[in-house]
Amino acid sequence: MATSGKGLEHVVLGDSSLTLVAGETGGLSYRGFDIGELVPRASYEGVVHLLLWGEPPARDPPERLSAELRERRIVPHALARRMEAVPPGLPPLEAMRSLLSLLGSPEWRYPPTDEQGLDLIAKTPTILAQYVRRSSGRAPLPDRPELGHVAHFLYQLTGEVPPAAKARALEQYCIMLADHGMNASTFALRIVISTQSDLISGAVAALGALKGPAHGGAPSKVADMLDAVGTPENAERWVEAALGRKERLMGFGHRAYKTEDPRAVLLKQIAKEIADPERLRVAEAVERAGVAALQRKRPEARLFLNVEFYGAVVLEAVGLPRELFTPTFAVARTAGWAAHAKEQSQDNRLIRPDVRYTGPAPGRGWPASPA
Amino acid sequence: MATSGKGLEHVVLGDSSLTLVAGETGGLSYRGFDIGELVPRASYEGVVHLLLWGEPPARDPPERLSAELRERRIVPHALARRMEAVPPGLPPLEAMRSLLSLLGSPEWRYPPTDEQGLDLIAKTPTILAQYVRRSSGRAPLPDRPELGHVAHFLYQLTGEVPPAAKARALEQYCIMLADHGMNASTFALRIVISTQSDLISGAVAALGALKGPAHGGAPSKVADMLDAVGTPENAERWVEAALGRKERLMGFGHRAYKTEDPRAVLLKQIAKEIADPERLRVAEAVERAGVAALQRKRPEARLFLNVEFYGAVVLEAVGLPRELFTPTFAVARTAGWAAHAKEQSQDNRLIRPDVRYTGPAPGRGWPASPA
Repeated sequence: MATSGKGLEHVVLGDSSLTLVAGETGGLSYRGFDIGELVPRASYEGVVHLLLWGEPPARDPPERLSAELRERRIVPHALARRMEAVPPGLPPLEAMRSLLSLLGSPEWRYPPTDEQGLDLIAKTPTILAQYVRRSSGRAPLPDRPELGHVAHFLYQLTGEVPPAAKARALEQYCIMLADHGMNASTFALRIVISTQSDLISGAVAALGALKGPAHGGAPSKVADMLDAVGTPENAERWVEAALGRKERLMGFGHRAYKTEDPRAVLLKQIAKEIADPERLRVAEAVERAGVAALQRKRPEARLFLNVEFYGAVVLEAVGLPRELFTPTFAVARTAGWAAHAKEQSQDNRLIRPDVRYTGPAPGRGWPASPA
Repeated sequence: MATSGKGLEHVVLGDSSLTLVAGETGGLSYRGFDIGELVPRASYEGVVHLLLWGEPPARDPPERLSAELRERRIVPHALARRMEAVPPGLPPLEAMRSLLSLLGSPEWRYPPTDEQGLDLIAKTPTILAQYVRRSSGRAPLPDRPELGHVAHFLYQLTGEVPPAAKARALEQYCIMLADHGMNASTFALRIVISTQSDLISGAVAALGALKGPAHGGAPSKVADMLDAVGTPENAERWVEAALGRKERLMGFGHRAYKTEDPRAVLLKQIAKEIADPERLRVAEAVERAGVAALQRKRPEARLFLNVEFYGAVVLEAVGLPRELFTPTFAVARTAGWAAHAKEQSQDNRLIRPDVRYTGPAPGRGWPASPA
């Protein structure tokens, strides 16, 4: 019997042709396309095409797929009414679990279809944005068909057609976050799909995992940290004090990467283009101080910047409030979830590991009988 | 790097002191108490005590815990109103995912507490029963404090205080189904909790996995099969014909057991006490024909009766419609989910396996740039 560490670290679940995470060298590619190739060149819709069908579209953005996502993002009246069930004012990530669940219906049956995958990708941003608007007493906005998938999401949240640079920055963020191999949310989804359950049940499970701060739930704390640091000059002292209190530095370290997270490098470039210069200086100072302090104190851990650090700076710069950082991550990741559900269903087997039983030996006698 | 089969078969996730599934010998015990000891002697509340706190109660049923579950099962008006968001008439298992999600709120934060666990166990049957009643235009029933956890669930569903024999039969079913080691739903829940997400998110993920027919979604098909067989005399011919069509026999086979599932043995005894005698004869004839045919045709597979076979006969005999078979399984399993969430949180580490990348090599060039 094979054994493993507690977190299934280094245990191979199986094969996947979706995403290569090269943790030692800092590489990330979707179906053979490096993230450094995709971020400057691809559209989010093009990446959806790549993830779902295995090949890039003939032209990017892909005309037919973009049109289909545009149509599917419109929430029919009956569905919008159903979503109103979720009480306003919840943390968006909490609300999102119920919104996604209510998106389901008996038609979403196993196996997941491409149409269902596109529906999940297209409607998740809309139902999230409509919920956020409703929570602050604002009506849903009319669809703007000229806007692409990501720009339209940002438009719905901010109420304004976003400047091209901001829309593109968020689109690049979403491309980078669209998939990441066998992370905890994708793993939860694949387990659900492995029982021949439906895509919505899988996506709801994935969202529940993403909600945990150890997976997707902490990027807003990077922004809190930058606030707390305040000025570039304060970074070193602040970092030393935090580490002295045994606090984890937000935005550093990722189990998969033993060098810089390639997304962190790209997000830093984007942040340099669109972030407030003062904010950027604080972030860069915290980066320098954090990397130096961690290499001094825990060199064996090889902790580098992760995707959350400059991800938070970018999301802030495009105008998103902190409570929408992780929900936006989820919106981006729906593409990966749909693609993993499809891949899992194509060669499916129930995922069910063993555990080592460490409790009392069998044969104990029950103390008393019910009356 | 350790490797494993596609379904993580024989991979050890870690330690657990909850449940020992002895697949080769057909043993099942919770914290050292064999299922054959618990089923005749314990109350469901006593088993909840055992699973959550590791020891049996001093007296069974446990007075204080029973009172607490009784109080917590009452759904406050505001919560009942929230649940009305879920449209009536859905398959109960589909509805249940949204009902459970809506039971959540920002107060359900990590780590899971005993109070949250008890709330999940107590309220799940009530919100399910109230949904089922609402779907058929019936008002929720007033609470009957004299009824224990399982009897009260049955009362709410049927509208009548159940005869003692039926209530006890369902209670014994729920004791047997309360936990089962690292099954797919519990595994999905533990992954969600491993990200430091909340208990409701974990339970919703678990429910999504249970929804799949390869895990919890097929017991109603056993009843359909018994209908199709019709008479004991028809069993052998029907089984041969089904196997000739390469169909899976419903209620046979379980990945964990290479001999008879101990729950199947106990459920057969219960079925003999409460099931309609004619129905029982059909079931026994299908059992005989199925076991004989499978041992002849696939002796290497060692396929025996599983929990679903006589489970379906018992659930039918206590008066539950087929669409409530798997939801009732879920109601029983909430005890295990709460206990596993607690255990996971007590020594937590993010669960994140690897995959073997089998796609194209990195370095491909993207065909075209966005406008």
